[in-house]
Amino acid sequence: MPAAKPAPALLFYSDTDTSRDLLYLGRFDCHDPFIAFSHRGKKTAVLNALEYGRGLKESAFDEILALEPLGAELRKLNPSGPRPAAADIIARLAARKRIPAFTVPDDFPAGLLERLRARGLTVTVAEGLVLPEREIKTAREAAAIRAGNRVATAGFLAAEDLLRRAKISGRKLLLDGTVLTSERVRLAIEIACLEAGGLALDTIVAGGDQACDPHCRGTGPLRPQELIIIDIFPRHTATGYHGDMTRTYLKGRANDAQRALVDAVATAQKAARKVLRAGAIGSAVHQECVKVFTARGYETKATPTGSVGFFHGTGHGLGLAVHEAPRVNSVAHEPLKAGAVVTIEPGLYYPGLGGCRIEDVAWLTETGHTLLSKHPYAWELA
Amino acid sequence: MPAAKPAPALLFYSDTDTSRDLLYLGRFDCHDPFIAFSHRGKKTAVLNALEYGRGLKESAFDEILALEPLGAELRKLNPSGPRPAAADIIARLAARKRIPAFTVPDDFPAGLLERLRARGLTVTVAEGLVLPEREIKTAREAAAIRAGNRVATAGFLAAEDLLRRAKISGRKLLLDGTVLTSERVRLAIEIACLEAGGLALDTIVAGGDQACDPHCRGTGPLRPQELIIIDIFPRHTATGYHGDMTRTYLKGRANDAQRALVDAVATAQKAARKVLRAGAIGSAVHQECVKVFTARGYETKATPTGSVGFFHGTGHGLGLAVHEAPRVNSVAHEPLKAGAVVTIEPGLYYPGLGGCRIEDVAWLTETGHTLLSKHPYAWELA
Repeated sequence: MPAAKPAPALLFYSDTDTSRDLLYLGRFDCHDPFIAFSHRGKKTAVLNALEYGRGLKESAFDEILALEPLGAELRKLNPSGPRPAAADIIARLAARKRIPAFTVPDDFPAGLLERLRARGLTVTVAEGLVLPEREIKTAREAAAIRAGNRVATAGFLAAEDLLRRAKISGRKLLLDGTVLTSERVRLAIEIACLEAGGLALDTIVAGGDQACDPHCRGTGPLRPQELIIIDIFPRHTATGYHGDMTRTYLKGRANDAQRALVDAVATAQKAARKVLRAGAIGSAVHQECVKVFTARGYETKATPTGSVGFFHGTGHGLGLAVHEAPRVNSVAHEPLKAGAVVTIEPGLYYPGLGGCRIEDVAWLTETGHTLLSKHPYAWELA
Repeated sequence: MPAAKPAPALLFYSDTDTSRDLLYLGRFDCHDPFIAFSHRGKKTAVLNALEYGRGLKESAFDEILALEPLGAELRKLNPSGPRPAAADIIARLAARKRIPAFTVPDDFPAGLLERLRARGLTVTVAEGLVLPEREIKTAREAAAIRAGNRVATAGFLAAEDLLRRAKISGRKLLLDGTVLTSERVRLAIEIACLEAGGLALDTIVAGGDQACDPHCRGTGPLRPQELIIIDIFPRHTATGYHGDMTRTYLKGRANDAQRALVDAVATAQKAARKVLRAGAIGSAVHQECVKVFTARGYETKATPTGSVGFFHGTGHGLGLAVHEAPRVNSVAHEPLKAGAVVTIEPGLYYPGLGGCRIEDVAWLTETGHTLLSKHPYAWELA
């Protein structure tokens, strides 16, 4: 009988803010790096005294080892040596648990990789995703993402309330006697999201030309008659899953060019959704948006101060991370999988005219998709 | 004349949530990984079209290169090859800029390290900190940390207001007719911090035995006559620097054992502060706390469900990260440096009795330190 192939363990050394794979593995939030590995289906974490009790109670690890006693054991073996570090503890556990080799994720710390190899361990950096199952969302995960989007919706309602109540005064918006700024709208969104059970980091409230830098968060007074992009991607606190939605607004009366821009983006989103299902190729979904924009004469090109037109992907996977697999863009040539959750967020950006982006979230099925986001598209606010 | 020693470039590939060194280098927040390097005093970033415009406007990089044209150049050279990735672009820039070798930080992604070496580049993982100057805070940075602590103070005021207004009803606290929970106090703190210009993530509001897991955030009803630890470490939004403060409270009337516990922790903090200055050894500062606890009979030990007593360090560096160099604990044998900013946060934890931690922030000088945190220590709230 041939010997069974030795199974390498999947090894992590990270905090869970940095490695969402580690969060997925252990369902345990920890802001300081710790050792964790998965070997033959058993998940082990090594936690220090600060985290040990919480790990026992809250995590999905099958085994929690206390860091300090492991360190003390190693000190006893080599009392005059340097203080035992992560590499020493991993080497000791590998010997004790007869782990023949480790696989580590692409973002594993380079320094620790070298120290493990210097101790004679066999460590291979994985090609591609180490937990590809993360891409396929269960019904429970889809519900958590939907809850994340409900948090975002609370943010949109708060923003719309401020924009509706504001009065146009020349080139400014006034609310309760003071100028309405991006910062003020963002604060109202953040508070509404907190109250709805989520955390909205780096919310974008960008008007006019600011919105033409798609990752500019927006500062200063919001102007009437200018397009305002609001992009909210909160983490649902109870589950760690994210929502991610964008709406574009205008306070006052839009002109024809603005209306045409918003209509093009809304039409592009619908065109992409029409072909969005498991088995569709990401780049083909993206191409549906490009076709709408091209047909309507919206050119995409680079300029010395940045790109204009539609210069980002149509969407990205969403889950424990705001950006994760799969991608829906011009270089995504693989078929999308059933159970994947992706954003659909075409946008157009032209300084002088302004920017527009509309973003929803879809959970893919064999025949189409279920929207996990729901909020009206009304954008011209009187 | 001997040839000048070839200067390696310091290379990063990270987002700035993960690498606060990269944030320090470029003063530019970016949630997706990007290439950046510092060579002969010039700082370069390679940004995609989404970030390029914002990078030009907001960052401290001396040079911003657009990612997409670099990718297009490489495609032209090898039209049938795979899509150019970070390693290809770094290799191309190394050749063009005559960079002989790279140094990367310890947490550089292992996969990219291997791909760079496979392309023949000389890449060395740095031992220790790559930007050790981050440890020494300028007056401007100290002011930013102080601003972070002012945000925390707004949080404490909000929490104290709820605790003061709550009425004791048996084993519960009632406020406006509903039960006062950790979650409700945390929400009030988070809103107050947002309004004060900061972002308080993972604030700890833990009462009773929950507080004995120092990183337990706290859930459910807060109880009268129980010690409640509140630890707030907000990021000041305008600068990215953190505050970090802890106060311990009790609603109602404390018993003698609780008073003795709080007095021991307060006394330990004062003892540590008495010796806290540039040149002091971190472990000696820590030992001042240990001495107070030992003299008063507070034992530290591991138990099957977690440690009890004083089982964490006295403090840690604070800045763009909540935990950074230097450390003030039993294994910190180096002298502390003038300009370092550290927390001083002794604590004691005994299930059944409860937990207490008091934390302030100090900026070290040759003769002592300047406190960067300020908030009263009154803890028994009637």
